[in-house]
Amino acid sequence: MSHNTFGKVLRFTSFGESHGATIGCVLDGFPPGMPITEEEIKVELKRRATGQSRHTSQRKEADDVNIISGVFEGVTTGHPIALLIENTDARSKDYTNIAKQIRPGHADFSYWKKYGVRDYRGGGRSSARETAMRVAAGALARKWLKIHHDIEIIAWLSQLGEIDLSPGDLTRIDESPFFTGEIDRVAELDQYMDALRKSGDSVGARINAKAVGVPAGLGEPVYGKLDAELALAMMSINATKGVEIGAGFDSVSQHGSVHRDEIIDGEFDSNHAGGILAGVSTGQDITLSVAFKPTSSLRLPAKSIDVDGQPIEVVTKGRHDPCVGIRATPIVEAMMALVIMDHLMRHQAQTQSHQR
Amino acid sequence: MSHNTFGKVLRFTSFGESHGATIGCVLDGFPPGMPITEEEIKVELKRRATGQSRHTSQRKEADDVNIISGVFEGVTTGHPIALLIENTDARSKDYTNIAKQIRPGHADFSYWKKYGVRDYRGGGRSSARETAMRVAAGALARKWLKIHHDIEIIAWLSQLGEIDLSPGDLTRIDESPFFTGEIDRVAELDQYMDALRKSGDSVGARINAKAVGVPAGLGEPVYGKLDAELALAMMSINATKGVEIGAGFDSVSQHGSVHRDEIIDGEFDSNHAGGILAGVSTGQDITLSVAFKPTSSLRLPAKSIDVDGQPIEVVTKGRHDPCVGIRATPIVEAMMALVIMDHLMRHQAQTQSHQR
Amino acid sequence: MSHNTFGKVLRFTSFGESHGATIGCVLDGFPPGMPITEEEIKVELKRRATGQSRHTSQRKEADDVNIISGVFEGVTTGHPIALLIENTDARSKDYTNIAKQIRPGHADFSYWKKYGVRDYRGGGRSSARETAMRVAAGALARKWLKIHHDIEIIAWLSQLGEIDLSPGDLTRIDESPFFTGEIDRVAELDQYMDALRKSGDSVGARINAKAVGVPAGLGEPVYGKLDAELALAMMSINATKGVEIGAGFDSVSQHGSVHRDEIIDGEFDSNHAGGILAGVSTGQDITLSVAFKPTSSLRLPAKSIDVDGQPIEVVTKGRHDPCVGIRATPIVEAMMALVIMDHLMRHQAQTQSHQR
Amino acid sequence: MSHNTFGKVLRFTSFGESHGATIGCVLDGFPPGMPITEEEIKVELKRRATGQSRHTSQRKEADDVNIISGVFEGVTTGHPIALLIENTDARSKDYTNIAKQIRPGHADFSYWKKYGVRDYRGGGRSSARETAMRVAAGALARKWLKIHHDIEIIAWLSQLGEIDLSPGDLTRIDESPFFTGEIDRVAELDQYMDALRKSGDSVGARINAKAVGVPAGLGEPVYGKLDAELALAMMSINATKGVEIGAGFDSVSQHGSVHRDEIIDGEFDSNHAGGILAGVSTGQDITLSVAFKPTSSLRLPAKSIDVDGQPIEVVTKGRHDPCVGIRATPIVEAMMALVIMDHLMRHQAQTQSHQR
Repeated sequence: MSHNTFGKVLRFTSFGESHGATIGCVLDGFPPGMPITEEEIKVELKRRATGQSRHTSQRKEADDVNIISGVFEGVTTGHPIALLIENTDARSKDYTNIAKQIRPGHADFSYWKKYGVRDYRGGGRSSARETAMRVAAGALARKWLKIHHDIEIIAWLSQLGEIDLSPGDLTRIDESPFFTGEIDRVAELDQYMDALRKSGDSVGARINAKAVGVPAGLGEPVYGKLDAELALAMMSINATKGVEIGAGFDSVSQHGSVHRDEIIDGEFDSNHAGGILAGVSTGQDITLSVAFKPTSSLRLPAKSIDVDGQPIEVVTKGRHDPCVGIRATPIVEAMMALVIMDHLMRHQAQTQSHQR
Repeated sequence: MSHNTFGKVLRFTSFGESHGATIGCVLDGFPPGMPITEEEIKVELKRRATGQSRHTSQRKEADDVNIISGVFEGVTTGHPIALLIENTDARSKDYTNIAKQIRPGHADFSYWKKYGVRDYRGGGRSSARETAMRVAAGALARKWLKIHHDIEIIAWLSQLGEIDLSPGDLTRIDESPFFTGEIDRVAELDQYMDALRKSGDSVGARINAKAVGVPAGLGEPVYGKLDAELALAMMSINATKGVEIGAGFDSVSQHGSVHRDEIIDGEFDSNHAGGILAGVSTGQDITLSVAFKPTSSLRLPAKSIDVDGQPIEVVTKGRHDPCVGIRATPIVEAMMALVIMDHLMRHQAQTQSHQR
Repeated sequence: MSHNTFGKVLRFTSFGESHGATIGCVLDGFPPGMPITEEEIKVELKRRATGQSRHTSQRKEADDVNIISGVFEGVTTGHPIALLIENTDARSKDYTNIAKQIRPGHADFSYWKKYGVRDYRGGGRSSARETAMRVAAGALARKWLKIHHDIEIIAWLSQLGEIDLSPGDLTRIDESPFFTGEIDRVAELDQYMDALRKSGDSVGARINAKAVGVPAGLGEPVYGKLDAELALAMMSINATKGVEIGAGFDSVSQHGSVHRDEIIDGEFDSNHAGGILAGVSTGQDITLSVAFKPTSSLRLPAKSIDVDGQPIEVVTKGRHDPCVGIRATPIVEAMMALVIMDHLMRHQAQTQSHQR
Repeated sequence: MSHNTFGKVLRFTSFGESHGATIGCVLDGFPPGMPITEEEIKVELKRRATGQSRHTSQRKEADDVNIISGVFEGVTTGHPIALLIENTDARSKDYTNIAKQIRPGHADFSYWKKYGVRDYRGGGRSSARETAMRVAAGALARKWLKIHHDIEIIAWLSQLGEIDLSPGDLTRIDESPFFTGEIDRVAELDQYMDALRKSGDSVGARINAKAVGVPAGLGEPVYGKLDAELALAMMSINATKGVEIGAGFDSVSQHGSVHRDEIIDGEFDSNHAGGILAGVSTGQDITLSVAFKPTSSLRLPAKSIDVDGQPIEVVTKGRHDPCVGIRATPIVEAMMALVIMDHLMRHQAQTQSHQR
């Protein structure tokens, strides 16, 4: 089957393949009356863009987004907002040599088993190229959250392979290609990445994020909990293997007397809950952490099979990207924005009613 | 708002509060023709039951489930299956002393902010009492998965506070109240729990699970991925703070050459993916891990406020449960079964079509 | 498959069979804070009750509804409201003589082909017994619409077989078992029904309805139009064969200069639109009309087959109901209330947002 | 709010406005492996095309559809199929004179009340231009139904204003712009339309349709009934005011002994049910009828208001279309195809399961 829509009241649907002519999305349910321009969306797309540093994949996309519908005279109309981006760097190269390869750690095996039909060009629908549309739609959600609720969302690199990173100065994460606030450690990270690329290998990454200013009361117990839907959103991003809310896995060995966030002088004394209790926001910062696996496309050869089941050796040619997780930072922010805005709208449906 | 339904083609809806007269659920979309008895469901309910050991809460529920609809002459009819359980141990005690307390780490604060109306009896709708219905519905799903696809699902305690536990002999997890296959460590766990209770404190738990026999091809890219919906399911369980698929957070520091599961002699050589690539099952075991926080209901006093915002001190009276996560084991299994069965049915919708 | 949920933000799920022990429903998404009692619901159930006149089926149900969850101290909590009604008049008679019959015009044939499993007791899930739960849930929706938006919904019998009926005095429809405001024609209707019963035959009915006070702006173009979802709701009622909004099929031969509702002195000059333009309410009365077919359960014998495909003759024994459509009046009202309340809540989700 | 998706397992989402640069749709859930070309889709689009006769609106669209995604090497991949059509005849004329007019009988009033933002160019999102995408997506569904289940869907004009039309020879409906099988009455219809246009007025139309070859067992009682979802689909088409299944409103005055379709010699003796009993298909032809209102855009002046509430007189300039309903014929077919294909897929989800 196929399921390319995310969200309940604010619904995001994406389409398009890595090497098709165009990728796109439809954002349905967005409220009328918000001014938005293509330029504002491009600002976010540039943050995600591949090729922004020497550490990432060579694909160079203009990400020249077009607003096709749902905006009239510069303002959202309440009708579906369709966004399109042409794939300008989808090389018309010859893929026949890999058309039958099953690359380990990729969608190739599971998609082949599922569909029996194969778009082998750059991963087809499974490619992270799709995430450009999440960032584009997320740009609208982030603007709306900021204007109407003064909510800010920020994500940063908290671990690169074995290297832990503290948040540092989060106002400076856009200054390096690593989305880190530890600006003085950028050289260290550069060296680490260079060595990794030289070795032909890759590592994973951990991205942390927080949403500041989210009002208390968002989340729909018990099967539309805010933390559960954030987990759904994060685990829908390419290459994710885990997600934590608040203290996450550390809470396993924590004592209850430490974990529970006491309220002293009318204020929470800590935030191990990550701003969510019983699936509903408390008004504290929403905090989460996401694990991204290392990319499987390496210069180091791997044993695999082809679509006929014959044993082959797979080698990625050309430059490879030693850590795909870093670039997921703006995608984590975009998904977090879409989830929170959807929940704000869902919350209004029920709570405004009884106040009339 | 309120959102008490889980699943897309196989849809589970629960209702009822901790101290209401009855809790129940509706399982809609279940295929016709499967024999099922109340006794079969009770077997699973007993595994979850509180009061089964000296380490858990004192509430003693008969969990005498009634099949209200959807089963005729012992066989499912294809119509909605409603299950009811009377709350026999919902004490009609006087709750007035806690009616206005906001207990730290509980739903009290966020629910109060959300609804402005409060069922203070034992947590009301936020209580883990609701999970009895998940286990009941899960019993039907597990039987169906076993009969029609020979799929087995098993969960076990992998960490209790600071204590790590290996799977041990998973055929023996029902022999102790700890759901562990490390039978010879039960005495150690007993001691640990006794000391904890004596101290008045609590710890969290980690539950691991696997599904064996799941065919390749389940999962609906890109917003109905199997791993993403498993994460949604796990994070909807009370007290969860994190979820991992396969190698999980360990994959952050793994090298790609290690993480990617090579295929040698037609077999996967490892399973860091946890049986899911790009959101779609591979046919390997589906593996996951879930973090449960320590309970916040302690004999140790905590600072908080009441619903009027006045500072108070909260103390849980009577016996407390030093680790609520242990009992989540059959709930993890039940949710995993519901997700996998839903995905099997969704997969059939699309794939059978083109084979006709 | 099975699909027993109606509505998007306000979601109604029903379960139970005609001759099971209990029927029930879950109303999820209902706002917190509204007072409601079982007695208030019973008032509506009595209006629907079978056996209220000599023209209807003999089944006598107490319809003693129980609120199982979602209401605490007499007030809705925002959590799922489960309602149960025991079937007290589900006779434990011997159904073996009809267990294999396919009754013409009933669900027997299509359900048998669909499920291959059969609850032959009184129609099982296909019975109109299920509509008691719609009326019960509708009672909550009607109260909410009245309290918060001063919306009134009223339905009446507009055609009985060949007999057309004008609305008459709609404040008096509860005075006769015919739900007609033409009180002075009740004797005529009584005679018509008596003659029909004597002949062993049946006729259909047309029910008209209107909602007064619905604000402009409800409806979600283009696939959640208010009129389209009202049509879905009406056509989900047992025995319906058609639905019209406003001028309905008469608009086919109307001229555009007549049909379009001009606005003169700031007021609509007519209401051929039925209060809905382009799927969105205008603030005028919402008007609709529904066709119900004649019941197929007659004393007159009919040719059919049994489940083995063998030819049989089917005869309904005992007293029969010569017009099932009449009793649909409160069901039409209930469904209309659920649709409009759902749309009010959905509308709030988007429109309140941009007013902040 | 906004709700631009139709269907449950096969999901169709449309976007775009009458005078935007592009309209489009996403068809998600379509099975992999079906060959499809843009040319095949254009065949259906031509049948719907405006400007095909002297009786319809002057807009001349190339309807040059582009398959953007979901098809690779000429075959569907199982991933979302996006289709785009550029609006080539969206005149960049000056709309300022009507920018503030509320045209009677149009979306202007209700949309203005709903959104408070206005795309006044040719109706914006409310325009029937959107239905081109339904016909495009319907072309894929119709091909799939034909190939895999030998299902044929055909619709025809059954009433034009006061003129009733019998089906005639349904193989010839594409021979005239009236979608009628009564070929020898085309001259009469031409005259009727010419007189109507001369008078400056308009009339409604009734379209009948049938689906031949639909297997028994489709439909999801009780809130996903096949007839109810067909009603939803039909009522979502622009200008619809009513829908009937089978005998429709005639069943109100029918006697039960006539209406019920007896089974004689193993065959249904009639089809008053329209191929659907209790919401589930019987294997007989599915038959329905849809009422379309007369267009409100006339040369005859109408009284109305502008967006500031000031009284105005509205006159449509240039040539007008005296009966918009005629052109709805292929749209009825497309929607019927989407509903039936969705139901076939949903049915498979549950029934295949228990056959394994």
